[in-house]
Order: sequence, then C-alpha cells, then structure tokens
Amino acid sequence: MSADFSRLSLNSATTKKWTLAEAVDGCARAGIPAIGPWRDRVAEAGLDKAAKLIKDAGLRVSSLCRGGFLTAADPEGQAAALADNFEAVREAVALDTQELFLVVGGLAPGEKDVVAARQRVADRLEELVPFASENGIRLVLEPLHPMYAADRALISTLGQALDLAAPYDAKAVGVAVDTFHVWWDPELQAQIERAGRENRIASYQVCDFNLPIAADALLSRGMMGDGVIDFATIGTWVRDAGYTGDIEVEIFNQEIWDADGDSVLETMKQRYAELVLPFA
Amino acid sequence: MSADFSRLSLNSATTKKWTLAEAVDGCARAGIPAIGPWRDRVAEAGLDKAAKLIKDAGLRVSSLCRGGFLTAADPEGQAAALADNFEAVREAVALDTQELFLVVGGLAPGEKDVVAARQRVADRLEELVPFASENGIRLVLEPLHPMYAADRALISTLGQALDLAAPYDAKAVGVAVDTFHVWWDPELQAQIERAGRENRIASYQVCDFNLPIAADALLSRGMMGDGVIDFATIGTWVRDAGYTGDIEVEIFNQEIWDADGDSVLETMKQRYAELVLPFA
Repeated sequence: MSADFSRLSLNSATTKKWTLAEAVDGCARAGIPAIGPWRDRVAEAGLDKAAKLIKDAGLRVSSLCRGGFLTAADPEGQAAALADNFEAVREAVALDTQELFLVVGGLAPGEKDVVAARQRVADRLEELVPFASENGIRLVLEPLHPMYAADRALISTLGQALDLAAPYDAKAVGVAVDTFHVWWDPELQAQIERAGRENRIASYQVCDFNLPIAADALLSRGMMGDGVIDFATIGTWVRDAGYTGDIEVEIFNQEIWDADGDSVLETMKQRYAELVLPFA
Repeated sequence: MSADFSRLSLNSATTKKWTLAEAVDGCARAGIPAIGPWRDRVAEAGLDKAAKLIKDAGLRVSSLCRGGFLTAADPEGQAAALADNFEAVREAVALDTQELFLVVGGLAPGEKDVVAARQRVADRLEELVPFASENGIRLVLEPLHPMYAADRALISTLGQALDLAAPYDAKAVGVAVDTFHVWWDPELQAQIERAGRENRIASYQVCDFNLPIAADALLSRGMMGDGVIDFATIGTWVRDAGYTGDIEVEIFNQEIWDADGDSVLETMKQRYAELVLPFA
C-alpha cells in the first residue's frame, strides 16, 4: 500500500496479546512509525528495556497510556494515586514521549456525588501538573463515553475536559479526541474548534463505535468502518483545528484481540488509508 | 407505608409482563395514583377499553410512551413516521394525558451523518407540533443516554433537547428529565435550571443506572438505590426548578421483569419514599 502512514500509531491495546517487543516488531514489519504503549506492557518488558527496544526499532512513542484514577476520597488513596501518577510521568520521560494520558477515574466506592468526585480530580491535578511540567510531560485529559462515567472517568465531554484544563498552560495540560468517546456529542464541532484555538489537542485516537454494544461494554470499540462513526467529518474538524500530530488506533475488541496481529495491522492500515488519512 | 404517594406513577414498562389491565389493577391495589402506559400495552387492550379501564380505576395518565423515531431519510419513511406520531397524539387525547414522549430516533440504516439526522428531527418536529398543539398534547423530547445515540435517540443531553424545543411554545414542546439518561451530564444542574426557567419540564422519570452495564445495554436501568445515581441531588435540582408534576418509575431490567409485579410495586414505593420523595 502506497499511502502515507507517517502519522499512524499503534496503541498497544489493539494487539493485546502481543508483548511490547512483539508489538514493536509488528509495527516495524508493517511500516507503522509510532506506538502508544500501555504501562502494563512497558512494565512487563522493564522500563529501560522497553525504551531501548522502541528506540532501536526507530519508532516514536506517540503517548503513554495511562495515568489518572485521581478520585480517591481518602488520604491514603489520594497519596497512592499521586505516587502512581508521578511514576507514570517518569515512565513517559524514559520512553521519550511528551503525552501522558489520564483516565481520571469514577466515583469512589459507594459514593454517588459526581460533583464532589469531579472536584477531587481538579484538586489532584493541581498537585500533579507542576511535577509533570518540570519533567516536560503534558497531561492529556481524556473524556470517556458517558457509559463509563461512574467507574472510569467522570470527564464525559471535550468541553468539560477543556474547562478542567483551563487553569493551566496548554503545554502542561492537553486533551484527547478519541472518536469512540466523543462522536455522539452535540457540541463536538464547537469544542474541537475551541480545543484547537486553545492549542490543547494532544492526541487524536481513532476507532469505531460498534453496535450492538458488546456484552462487556468496554469491548465495543471497533475497527474504523465497522461501526457508526463518521471519520470524514470528525477528522476534518480535527484537521481544521490545526492538529498535525500522530493518529493512534486504540481498539478493545475480543474478535480483534483473537485475530492474528499482523493481519490486524494490515486491516488497520487499509482502513486508515481509506477512512482517516484523506481527512487528516 | 404512610408516605405521600400522590405524585408517584408506574410506567408500564416496569412491570413488562403485566397487561395494561393487570398494571392498572396493580396500581389500584398498591395505592399508586397514576400510570404511564406504553402504546403497545394500550394497543393490546384496545384504545377505548384502555382509556375506560384506567379511568374506571381512578388513575391519572402521567404520560404516554412513546412517539418519535423521526429520522427516516426517505419520503416514505418520513410519511410513515409522521402518520404514526399523529396516531400517537390521538391516543394521548383518548387516554386523557397531555404528555406524549418522543424518542427521536437514531441514524438511518447505513447513515453516519449525525448532523443531518438531527436536522431531520427538527424538520419532522416542525410538521408535528401544530397537530399536537391543536389537540392539546405537549410533545416531550427525551434526551437518551449517549450509548443509545446511534440507534435510538440523537438527542443526548438536556441542553440539546431544550435547544430543539426553543422555537416552540413551552405548552407545545417540553423535555423529560430521566435520571438514567442524564445523571452523568456535567451541565445537568445548569440545564435543569434552564428547563425550569423555560417552563419545559414535562416529566421527571426516576430509575437507577446499574453497574456493570447489562449484557443487553437497554436493560441496565435499575430500581432506585441499586445503582450509582444521586437522587437527592438531582431531585433537589428538579424541585428547585419548579417541577410539581408526576414522578414516573420506568425500569427495563430482566430481574425486575421476572419478579412478582406486586412485590416490584412495593419495593418501588419503599425506594421512592426513601430516596425520591424527601427531595420532591
């Protein structure tokens, strides 16, 4: 395939059964120039070895997934969350990426007060941003689909993420546009424009929203083209907002996880070339 | 139980296996003064008979569920949708309720353009409102949880519903606040206040958001108290916005559907008295 894959990145969750070394080799074989590793895959490889094997393969690290889970209500939980996020910042530095995704967390166990839980996200961010900035790492606030609000992320819209980022320099706190999470938002065009004006688009992640929703709702992410998302429209909005960075493909989907990794990467390149690249 | 159940209404979907006659009898036995029937249950009973049996039991009809599905892209589909909604208006009149719920519909088959599909909702509404108004029926726009955006309702937030209602008199087009659908919305407090100012709150429906999300995502609605929703906070917002109408309990949940109807109504009354009524 002769398309330009220079901005394409494989998020390691897409090839979940591959080790980091296998994913790096797969990208090299497929001519995919960047990777977005998850921290568990990095930990399995060992941080220094992970950094070296990515670098030796000539790949960029588009982002590190993920820190966050900042909503603990008790001091011990809050201290543990901060410590884990400091460690994630150090890992991002070692891996030579600038973008650290944050999935901010949901309600504390038994809690129902979303307003209070969201305030704790803002409080933890205040403690975390200086350390990340000193280390040259941008914290990337990721709005998650509202179906994950209670247990994963109480940031549900791009506008809300931008409001939370507003107190900080755009180099310190950015936002992610993940098509799966935000495609339904009636404010999406306006908020992508705003994110561009505010220089906060730190990542564009693509995957589809499959129907019916999978029995495990986390696994409803699909290969681009298999679901309901209009990549032409959203991609044009992201491009027009000035985003020129990597485009990561992150898919949680049992069928894709069960398939051969190399063939997943080939399909991913085809769909990217057809559906995403023309509007990038 | 000595609580004040004068605003409590049973949505017939909560006791799905009951016929309309059985649901009416169940409400009468339980001292629940209102019912919100679905059209399929009304059709099974026959419209005139349905109206009579509700009236003879001394129950109010809090709303009729539901018209809508207005997003057909072809002329035949659009004409059929309008005809069905005209019929729903007539049924609402016969049942002596003023509130007709609209679930506006999702994408047309194969379509991915949410902006165009939403415009078709606005277009159909323009054709439907005059007929409903002449018949004394208020169309109730119901924002649905974003997980149902593609296939059920491209109105995902209360703010969006209010924007769509804005061209019309508040007596002609209202909005529903259904806790399951809107609890996660970061704009919820502001939009409930706005809905109150604009006199558009036509219905307050309560049920919980259960986790994990059910394998059939439609069935994740739970009995109040079984999930993550803060009824005290949302109820207070709705009360402070001036809503004094019926409070409908509408639950799609296999376990509740499999349970004995009378015991479901007893649990519903208990939970309403504990969790909803103190803030109503």
